[in-house]
Amino acid sequence: MLIGIIAVGSELLSPFYQDTDSLFITEKLNELGLEPAFKMVVGDDPDNLRMILQISVDKADFIFVVGGLGPTEDDRTREITAKVLGRKLIFHPEILATIEARFEQRGMVMPISNRRLAYILEGAEILPNLVGTAPGQWIEANGKKIILLPGPPRELQPMFNEFVAPRLKSWQRGSLVRRVLKIAGLTESQVEDIIKDLYPRDPDLKITVLAYPGQIEIHLMSFGLSKVMAEQKMVPLLQTFIERLGINIFSSQGEELEAVVGQLLRRLKMTIAVAESCTGGLIGHRLTSIPGSSDYFLEGFIVYSNQAKIKTLGVSAELIQQYGAVSYEVAQAMAENIRLKCGVSIGLSTTGIAGPGGGTPNKPVGLVFTGLAHENGTEVIRNMFFGGREQIKFQTSQRGLDMLRRYLLKIAGEKT
Amino acid sequence: MLIGIIAVGSELLSPFYQDTDSLFITEKLNELGLEPAFKMVVGDDPDNLRMILQISVDKADFIFVVGGLGPTEDDRTREITAKVLGRKLIFHPEILATIEARFEQRGMVMPISNRRLAYILEGAEILPNLVGTAPGQWIEANGKKIILLPGPPRELQPMFNEFVAPRLKSWQRGSLVRRVLKIAGLTESQVEDIIKDLYPRDPDLKITVLAYPGQIEIHLMSFGLSKVMAEQKMVPLLQTFIERLGINIFSSQGEELEAVVGQLLRRLKMTIAVAESCTGGLIGHRLTSIPGSSDYFLEGFIVYSNQAKIKTLGVSAELIQQYGAVSYEVAQAMAENIRLKCGVSIGLSTTGIAGPGGGTPNKPVGLVFTGLAHENGTEVIRNMFFGGREQIKFQTSQRGLDMLRRYLLKIAGEKT
Repeated sequence: MLIGIIAVGSELLSPFYQDTDSLFITEKLNELGLEPAFKMVVGDDPDNLRMILQISVDKADFIFVVGGLGPTEDDRTREITAKVLGRKLIFHPEILATIEARFEQRGMVMPISNRRLAYILEGAEILPNLVGTAPGQWIEANGKKIILLPGPPRELQPMFNEFVAPRLKSWQRGSLVRRVLKIAGLTESQVEDIIKDLYPRDPDLKITVLAYPGQIEIHLMSFGLSKVMAEQKMVPLLQTFIERLGINIFSSQGEELEAVVGQLLRRLKMTIAVAESCTGGLIGHRLTSIPGSSDYFLEGFIVYSNQAKIKTLGVSAELIQQYGAVSYEVAQAMAENIRLKCGVSIGLSTTGIAGPGGGTPNKPVGLVFTGLAHENGTEVIRNMFFGGREQIKFQTSQRGLDMLRRYLLKIAGEKT
Repeated sequence: MLIGIIAVGSELLSPFYQDTDSLFITEKLNELGLEPAFKMVVGDDPDNLRMILQISVDKADFIFVVGGLGPTEDDRTREITAKVLGRKLIFHPEILATIEARFEQRGMVMPISNRRLAYILEGAEILPNLVGTAPGQWIEANGKKIILLPGPPRELQPMFNEFVAPRLKSWQRGSLVRRVLKIAGLTESQVEDIIKDLYPRDPDLKITVLAYPGQIEIHLMSFGLSKVMAEQKMVPLLQTFIERLGINIFSSQGEELEAVVGQLLRRLKMTIAVAESCTGGLIGHRLTSIPGSSDYFLEGFIVYSNQAKIKTLGVSAELIQQYGAVSYEVAQAMAENIRLKCGVSIGLSTTGIAGPGGGTPNKPVGLVFTGLAHENGTEVIRNMFFGGREQIKFQTSQRGLDMLRRYLLKIAGEKT
């Protein structure tokens, strides 16, 4: 069974927009054990649209056509699908009435162009649009299924979940179960070395490794004839990976690192303050991106200049003079001072050279010290990061949050 | 002339990856007055790949095939293109020698699988890979052009610029000139209202408006038979937009807002410190994402808790008691205190409710005060932002930086 996804819209042939709907549809198909064989993007030009629709209908058994269902003259998916399939378009007054009512509810007059939305291919089933105006259509022709869907994700997604996914059940080839392990503190090649003998031979199990600076993700996918069978294969696979990678995994449910440390701080009833130099506020920004973070994140000092480190944070001028602002000693003093000044359980600090300027042979761009002060002492890590300014800042924030996570896990382990 | 872009790779049919190479190719085609008629994505499956390549060769005159040129068995673009076109693959020892030399230079032994990269379709021109191993190929067959390109953007882009774009010149239909105006301080509908009568009727001029929370971009495109002719039409269009939108435009050369304010601060020899509550460090992070920002950004206080506002920043407890932490008065005190405490020219402050919790009927989620203290006084703006936590934080940072920009422009105007 061949599945194709067609995205319609001239904006998708510009350098500005990506077709993201097909990612959503693919995810939903995968859950049913189905995969697209191809994806196509075509603009509003009627000849090209007709050509692409004709090809899809010729080649595929299931065709999802997304977009081009709106009220404007550029929206030609309905008309051209009808032509390709040799079907009539039938006017449905009840659809128009629903659309008119939607406009009325908002105190607006329906533009007459919306009449177009009430035309449905002969013999098509109507897929109601719960949050917008253009209905979808499920068409069967010569044993093929052609499914017309609106382009806006907030309309497409509920329509797919409510009315398309249930209809796909009869073609369900099984169930796909997916888990994502997120890892910090290891490079991509370190992760690959650790897991290289774990790649399963079973064709129903699939591993995808995605590497970002400072974060590696392992996507584990298990396919089975039923969800239970897929999960039965997933459990030992997941266990092997979790055992092998251990504490380096910070999340197996999709959470970000800042959410994980937030949960730990909350559980341990601990508070934190940050003293950021090279990250310039990024760690504060990440910690405060979590709702409710004011419960544990109290404050931060962005001590970018030496004067700020000395005057605001109380780092001794002699220390900076002797070791330089980017040093083990200054990172340590920064973490300890922010902890004491703010009266928090934990102080976190960063100082480094984010580049592109400011590097020297002894202290090159990418050299960063991260410090963590707590009731048991102060840890400092000397890091050497690669990449541009943004990557170095992000990796620094990731290392700082990961030091915090590892410490909190140790404390949580001791407490239980 | 019909142009198609084919992206090859099973990962591009997963929910994880997008084909971004086609955006780059589209941009380059647009510059020559050319546009793709369709884009396709297909995986490594040989039957599907063959089907899609066959369709493209049947339908299009120019086909860019991206990806599937690597050394592994999954990389089948070479073989299957050869089959579709009925051409032989010829082994080129000089290509293999170049690849071997690359590995040697790095002290590595070339894996034997790299032999695959040295096979070129009969009659194809070789497109050298300046930064990687797999060469591209330019093939002409039955009046059609098939161009095979490597998938990694850092290999594709220089190859396209150096060896493909020059070859496309003979099909150049003209020149496209593009300018981007970035706007802060107006909503999308305000921008639309201001420019609605400026949409040009000339089919050679095109306007695209992209709206993000806190930032609107207007992309102006002018097409002409030559670059000079395209620019001649662009100049008056650009002028009309710049006159109409005035100071609301913060950049017409692509720079981000934090870069624009950085340039102004540097030019005016002024310094800044920030006192962030609801933005949690985001403004500091944005300002310090610009290389050399340490020249004007000295420090920041992330005063997330009330205690931090009182103890660290010296906001009076009575003021917070009387008006609440999210208030005009506290934003004003925060901006003034950070300015004085840090001895800088300008103090910038934010305090608000980023949500999703913490809102009340009087002070709902999205209510934010931004303050700017300078030698001539203190400005405070009461903002009501919509969206999730991240959007509210971003819009707040954008408003703060935009207040700063407008003030600096005024000062710069007075000085000249």
